[in-house]
Amino acid sequence: MTQPTPRDSAATRRRLLDAARDEFTARGIAGARVDRIAVAAHANKAQIYHYFGDKDGLFDAVLESFTEEAVGAVPIDADDLPGYAARLFDYHFDHPDLLRLVTWARLEGRTTPSTHAQRTTSYQRRADGIKNAQQEGRVTTALSASHILDLIESLAVGWTTAARGLLVDTSKLKRERKAYRAGIAEAVQRIVQPG
Amino acid sequence: MTQPTPRDSAATRRRLLDAARDEFTARGIAGARVDRIAVAAHANKAQIYHYFGDKDGLFDAVLESFTEEAVGAVPIDADDLPGYAARLFDYHFDHPDLLRLVTWARLEGRTTPSTHAQRTTSYQRRADGIKNAQQEGRVTTALSASHILDLIESLAVGWTTAARGLLVDTSKLKRERKAYRAGIAEAVQRIVQPG
Repeated sequence: MTQPTPRDSAATRRRLLDAARDEFTARGIAGARVDRIAVAAHANKAQIYHYFGDKDGLFDAVLESFTEEAVGAVPIDADDLPGYAARLFDYHFDHPDLLRLVTWARLEGRTTPSTHAQRTTSYQRRADGIKNAQQEGRVTTALSASHILDLIESLAVGWTTAARGLLVDTSKLKRERKAYRAGIAEAVQRIVQPG
Repeated sequence: MTQPTPRDSAATRRRLLDAARDEFTARGIAGARVDRIAVAAHANKAQIYHYFGDKDGLFDAVLESFTEEAVGAVPIDADDLPGYAARLFDYHFDHPDLLRLVTWARLEGRTTPSTHAQRTTSYQRRADGIKNAQQEGRVTTALSASHILDLIESLAVGWTTAARGLLVDTSKLKRERKAYRAGIAEAVQRIVQPG
């Protein structure tokens, strides 16, 4: 048996992350089975322990890679916060798995220190963008930059937790998607306008 | 053995609902154990089947009673929507179990027709209150009444799903609670003001 090349290792790690994302999204952390992830990734359990330590380490890695994808896919534009909110809404509408993952983590009482730090850095960078726009008079100073960021996030993802996204027929929400997104953008416009 | 009196029945039903609320909140629907609920309620499994049909019926009853409590505890005031949003935020901050229950239901792909209908009625009543305030010029007509209601709900509960409520230290959120609530009220004020 030959040693795996670096290219093999990266590919195996990627396949394990993909399989783990599906498994954790569907079943949460407690419900996920490492055996099932190994089989789906055409790998074995020993490789999971080698690359990620344990099931918790694997979950952290999945959440981190997913969060990086999301932050990269929806860059903030402090000069167009209504548009940013609309794009954030679209992203989570089209990629519900990230919110599912994070929601499992919350329900299962899981905190993720590494992702927390990573997320805090990206959070700070976005808040700084808003602060800059406030200093130049393009965004209201009636609310702090971090509050504005939190409010925008709440508007963009809150529908998944609020009545509308939960107990109401989701096929109806799909039909109303454009109007709903426009409502979010209008709300953000009203929140951030100076004066 | 004597027949249970109506008073006994109501008390047993109540104890089963209370025990089931704790069990479902902690473990979700799939993870909940009917045996454990029966023991905690000083009852037996046969009584659960008698009163609620099955585990799903018991979950529906728990969610319905909890939702009724919440809607009763936070009545809408269409003339003070910022205050309503702040009270809704407070309620869910102090009673996180309702959102936990609903979130389990969502993650587990559960729809709850009876509660849906009940919730839709209360939803319509609240939207009608806002519509009335719009007709009298006290609330903007730039957004529909139901969008305004959805946006308020998103702002009041969205923090549980957004970064702040998930990966950020919740003890920090507790310290910032007053400022956060004030930010939500300010945002709603800006969203609903006429013109």
